[in-house]
Amino acid sequence: MFALAREASPRILRALLLTMSDSPRTSVGIDFGGTFVKLGVCRGGDLLETDEPIPTADFNGPAALIGEMAARVAKLQQKYPDICAIGVGVPGLVDFEHGFVHILTNVPGWKHVPLKAILGERTGLPVVVENDANAMAWAEFRYGAGRGLQNVVALTMGTGIGGGLVLNGKMYRGTGCAAGEIGQMSIDCDGKAGHYGNLGALEKYTGNKEIAEHAVQRYAEAHITKTLEECTPKKIAEAAKAGDDIARQVWDEVADWLGTAISSIAWLLNPDAFVIGGGVAQAGDLIFDPLKRKVQSMLSTVVWERLQILPAKYSNEAGIIGNAALAADAV
Amino acid sequence: MFALAREASPRILRALLLTMSDSPRTSVGIDFGGTFVKLGVCRGGDLLETDEPIPTADFNGPAALIGEMAARVAKLQQKYPDICAIGVGVPGLVDFEHGFVHILTNVPGWKHVPLKAILGERTGLPVVVENDANAMAWAEFRYGAGRGLQNVVALTMGTGIGGGLVLNGKMYRGTGCAAGEIGQMSIDCDGKAGHYGNLGALEKYTGNKEIAEHAVQRYAEAHITKTLEECTPKKIAEAAKAGDDIARQVWDEVADWLGTAISSIAWLLNPDAFVIGGGVAQAGDLIFDPLKRKVQSMLSTVVWERLQILPAKYSNEAGIIGNAALAADAV
Repeated sequence: MFALAREASPRILRALLLTMSDSPRTSVGIDFGGTFVKLGVCRGGDLLETDEPIPTADFNGPAALIGEMAARVAKLQQKYPDICAIGVGVPGLVDFEHGFVHILTNVPGWKHVPLKAILGERTGLPVVVENDANAMAWAEFRYGAGRGLQNVVALTMGTGIGGGLVLNGKMYRGTGCAAGEIGQMSIDCDGKAGHYGNLGALEKYTGNKEIAEHAVQRYAEAHITKTLEECTPKKIAEAAKAGDDIARQVWDEVADWLGTAISSIAWLLNPDAFVIGGGVAQAGDLIFDPLKRKVQSMLSTVVWERLQILPAKYSNEAGIIGNAALAADAV
Repeated sequence: MFALAREASPRILRALLLTMSDSPRTSVGIDFGGTFVKLGVCRGGDLLETDEPIPTADFNGPAALIGEMAARVAKLQQKYPDICAIGVGVPGLVDFEHGFVHILTNVPGWKHVPLKAILGERTGLPVVVENDANAMAWAEFRYGAGRGLQNVVALTMGTGIGGGLVLNGKMYRGTGCAAGEIGQMSIDCDGKAGHYGNLGALEKYTGNKEIAEHAVQRYAEAHITKTLEECTPKKIAEAAKAGDDIARQVWDEVADWLGTAISSIAWLLNPDAFVIGGGVAQAGDLIFDPLKRKVQSMLSTVVWERLQILPAKYSNEAGIIGNAALAADAV
């Protein structure tokens, strides 16, 4: 290697170094959800293997669950001895620098848990702890729809709406690691109250349940009785595709609300792209077409022309891939 | 110096180097407005001297005006031979990297002007060209109300509402150098149309003219006839201080609108501080007290507890100081 270095041209050496630093590392991604903890081994954005999900409720408190995570990692290490780091994404507020979990409101007993310290001690590996929406954003930025871009705003649409920001090619976390709460942004200063009393909170309009409620109401106005179960985003998408005008109108309205928030973020951050994942994004053109029209109608040419609005590449595997990538990129 | 270096301890050397690299540099700040071009010499945030303002309309096109800027800089260099750079802030869209002015809608003839190249060639000094709101943000971050913080959102409230973002200690410009347009963000998805057709644009509620119009209307509802000139933000502030309930109500409403946008930005960016300058900020507690109450009511404890809402330190001199600082920090 050193003999080669003495003889090789600086250009070749640079290329060699670049390849070395870019050669994909193997890491474990852990997607810690309220119901299941999902684990997988990744390399350069490829999900090599997923382990059986761990039912979160089967373990009484953090110590037991972290112990199980460590045991699973040890098992994976037998097959992948080159695992170099672990990334864990959690559904709640973390202190990224210390890998400390402040609180997981949906997981009993998870309050003030030094997850990075404990899991690192149990496995002997470097551990990165991140908010789950940030991990999803990183997956899309590094290997997904936002690959090659610099400024990416990621949204995950489900029961609530999470978000993550990659700015100037880096994860942006904010002062208290609480940035990216797009679902709490207001689209109406006199609107419906969100979880924190925040009027007009986006997720009170475009969360899965709220979309269903809105659809039920629109059908009722047309004297058609439907239940919430008949109006899930998936079923409204099917109805719209089958030519149902009311269902199509519901998607247009969802696009108006979502587009209002997206255009505000675009004015503020002038990003390359919004990457949208989760159930609502599955509606495809039904949501993306009116959404793009709405956002364009709300922006200057300068901001709009450089903007992409993209469906996420990853779905369920985003957490594992994003956390694994965050860990691999950090070591 | 080198003899000292050989004998000094590494700790002392480090301190010495730090002092040297932090020692304030002398630079020129140029605040390019639609009416006047203002120039000043700054050092470490101190405005050492301001030159006579140049009436923008006195010069026919970019070449002549840039020539005058260069002549003024040459004059200032006689007194301050250590001037090391020039920063120019312009009221419009720039390409920061190339110091290129795309267009200044309020200055005839300013379209596609390579300002950095021309002014640099004329003066022989490094030139930085920035958007004016970004320069104001940098002044507050480096030497003003946001000093020592990492994530600062600056707002300038006047006819329109400009903004600038300092994130992780760096100016954040966005993909097309168009970030920070807080005045265009929507606070009402069904609201008043902004300049770009964007519904609910904040500045259509809290721009100086819009505040006056709103006050006239509130007085009219109470059967009091007032003109727009009697309802400038300054006069409404005087009236509120003198105990006028309607004027006070107007400020509360302005705080509600502004607070809606600020809380949305806080959810998205989780910053250390908002720094608010311009005419509206002059109303002091009349605006800041209800604004803080509103923003607190819209945020989680986690985001609110670390957040400051501060009046700007600088007013008219913000442009000169910010541009000078951007230039000094860049060389």
